[in-house]
Order: sequence, then structure tokens, then C-alpha cells
Amino acid sequence: MTADGGRDPRGDVLAVEEPLEIRVDGSPVVVTMRTPGDDIELAAGFLYTEGLLGAGTGISSITMCDDNVALVTVTVPVAVRSRSFLATSACGVCGKDSIESVRVRSAFDVAADQARVPASVLLSLPALLRSAQRVFASTGGLHAAGLFTAAGELLVAREDVGRHNAVDKVAGWALLSGRLPLAGCVLMVSGRASFELAQKAVMVGVPVLAAVSAPSSLAVSLAVETGLTLAGFVRGSAFNLYAGASRVTS
Amino acid sequence: MTADGGRDPRGDVLAVEEPLEIRVDGSPVVVTMRTPGDDIELAAGFLYTEGLLGAGTGISSITMCDDNVALVTVTVPVAVRSRSFLATSACGVCGKDSIESVRVRSAFDVAADQARVPASVLLSLPALLRSAQRVFASTGGLHAAGLFTAAGELLVAREDVGRHNAVDKVAGWALLSGRLPLAGCVLMVSGRASFELAQKAVMVGVPVLAAVSAPSSLAVSLAVETGLTLAGFVRGSAFNLYAGASRVTS
Repeated sequence: MTADGGRDPRGDVLAVEEPLEIRVDGSPVVVTMRTPGDDIELAAGFLYTEGLLGAGTGISSITMCDDNVALVTVTVPVAVRSRSFLATSACGVCGKDSIESVRVRSAFDVAADQARVPASVLLSLPALLRSAQRVFASTGGLHAAGLFTAAGELLVAREDVGRHNAVDKVAGWALLSGRLPLAGCVLMVSGRASFELAQKAVMVGVPVLAAVSAPSSLAVSLAVETGLTLAGFVRGSAFNLYAGASRVTS
Repeated sequence: MTADGGRDPRGDVLAVEEPLEIRVDGSPVVVTMRTPGDDIELAAGFLYTEGLLGAGTGISSITMCDDNVALVTVTVPVAVRSRSFLATSACGVCGKDSIESVRVRSAFDVAADQARVPASVLLSLPALLRSAQRVFASTGGLHAAGLFTAAGELLVAREDVGRHNAVDKVAGWALLSGRLPLAGCVLMVSGRASFELAQKAVMVGVPVLAAVSAPSSLAVSLAVETGLTLAGFVRGSAFNLYAGASRVTS
């Protein structure tokens, strides 16, 4: 109901949020709060972009045990730990470089990607992403991530209450369809660009990350360090480039 | 730079994001990506609202080891684990109720809170919260959480790149200043209301959670179950009430 007692169409359709537990070879790894749908892609993308499987370890199978548990088996047994412990153990001592403490290593070198993206294409992506969304307009509660070619062709779009989950769903789609690295592609996200999202982009070899809203300081640092092109405030007729500006052509 | 090569004032000031590692009695518990500032409150609030300390365990001291490590000592030694493992071990078997798998128990019963909040007060909170923010207007990248009395008086406001961190900073402020439970108060957040935020509100005994944007399905479920008043889309001259509507008076 609204302040004046009437019904307001805003928010009448709630964004669905449910926990997804991801297990690897029977061991629970994480519980993430997500919007159900594309859960197998989400599980694959999460494990891959968080660097939890390690080099040389592939995914053998992913099945849903019930609606909210993804059972993953891998080709080589690994001791998968939660990201918080991983990050902590990699840090070890106080004062270590703050980026290093949360960095995971990508198998791909996005700095070497020769893609060029016209500014006009970048500016077209928010509308293309929005039109690809099925739920956002009705709930206002779902974030979106879209993968595009440098010519602005949509490859895949995914939604979630968590922006990181939307990106992991895209990453898992690409991983499971044998498309990694995502050379020459642009990843467009509906909100802000955090360090976490920039790192996920680098992990799947995307050379350009574009966001409707602001990037964080650490996202910019990571982009500069890895050679990722980072565009923020992609809205209307303008955007800001924070790193890798040479990939964007006028 | 912008698409046309000029400077755009949007986003020139980046929202700062750095990892904060929280250790309890020497053991690393979590690394959270946050905006530096009010870190001691953040550490206290995180441990409390995630239910990681358990009943009867208090915080003895919190000191910053360096800029990005919070060292917490507690009154009773506890085996603190990361939330993902906690949640997972609480779930145990597939098919268990999805809310139960991620619920933590509050020491407070918000259903018993007799607070009444005029609709006019609810509608005034977004502007009051915005005016209390120091950074949001210039970066667009920081979320905010504000704690208000039922009469609309601001008690404290905190900002962060992560909405959950902003709420934890408010919770930690309340915990460390001996104000729990936050009976009769309203917690206003700048964006969406997820399950996680609703749970944090209940953990500190806030009877009313208000959000500028949409709540999730699980946030509404938790609010209904616990007796939390949940208002969403609090914008302009209207809002939607998803639970606990009787606390809001016209």
C-alpha cells in the first residue's frame, strides 16, 4: 500500500531472492543470496571468477540437488575454501598491499587484447541491456550484466538481485559454452563497478568493463594494473573512462 | 574523459574501496570490501549482526593493526567461522527451508516493539539521509544507512560502497555506545532492501526498515516472520508497505 492508502504499481512484483549453496565434490563452498534461474551457470561462473578451482582443474558436472543446492564435481580434487578464507590466507601479514590481499590470478592477459570499441557502441549498451531484461522494469530490484561484441551485438544477458551474481551467470554461460577467453567483448553492468566486478571481468578475459554508475577506487587500480578498459557513468550521451582509454575510438 | 573528449564532473571523485580484514582473537574471520572510515564500528557491527559472537560473548577491544586490519578480542573465546560456513553448517541437508539456512537468531523481539511512525516522517527520511551524506552527491558511488527516531530525528548516518557495510557501521555505533536494542527507531537505507539488511535490522532490534528502492522476496518473508515493518520505494510522496503496516500511521 502507499502513504495515502492506495496501491502503487511500483514494487508489486518482488525481486526473488533465495540462498544458493554451492558444493564442490560434496564440500560446501559458499552460500550466495541470488535470484533463482541460470543456477548452473552461476555456480560455474562463481567458482571460475573467484579463482577457487585453480589452474588445470575443470568442472566435470553440475547438477541441482534441490532448488537451492548446486552439486559440482571437478576433474582434479582440490581443497576449495571460501573466498574470505582464501583472501585472508593470501594476505597473511598486516600491511600487505591491499589489492594483493584480494587478488586472484587470471589465466588471460586482457592487456594484450587488441579490441577497439567505438564510443557510439558504448553509449548504446545501456539501452540494449535494459531491453534485454525481462524483470527489471517491473520490479526495480534486479541488476543486470550483458556481454556484447565490440560492434554492440548482444551475446547474453543475465539478471540477479546481486550484481556479482549477474556477472557470474554471464561468466558461467561463457565457460560452459567454451567461449573463454572473452576476447574482444564488452561487459556492461547496470550499476556500479566494484573491484569484485572488475576482477571477474579480468578472470574471463573481457577487455572492456562498462558500468552505468561509478567505479570504485580499487576497481580503477585493478583496471590500470591489468590493462582492462573501465568506463563508468555510461548514460545518455557521455561516459567517463578510468583506464584503458585507447580501446575506445571516437 | 567523456565520449566527446571533455571532462565530466560526474565520477571525478571516486568512491574509495579497500579490503578490511576482521580478526577475532587472532583468527581471520572475513575480508570485506568497504570504504575506509568508522572501521571499528564496522567490525563490531559485522560480528554482531551476523551472529558470529553468540549469546553471552561480548567484545573486549577492537584496535586497528594497520589501515585495513581490525583486531577484535572477545570476552569469551568462541570458534568464529565465516558466514558462508556457518550458514552451510546450519543448513546441513538439501531441501531445508531456505530462510532457515541463512537465518541468525536475534536477541531482540522486534514484533513486540510498540513504536508508531507517521507516514510523513517516513517520507522525510530520504532527504534527511541525503543531506547527512558527505560524499554521495559528488561520487554517486556510496550507499548510506541512517538511524532515526520515530519522530524523524537523525541519530547517526554512515556511508560505504557496500550497503551492508553502511548498515554494519550504524549497528556497530549503536552496539559500542550501549544503545541496543534500537527500540522505536527507523533504519533508512539508500538502495534496495535485501534479506541481509532486513536480518541486520532485526539483529539490532530496529522495528522499522525503510528503503529507497525495492525489497527482495526473502526480505519481505523475514519481515513478516519477525514482525519487522518493511517500507520500500520510499520516494517523493509515496511508499509501499510490505510488512508490519500497523506501525505506520497516517
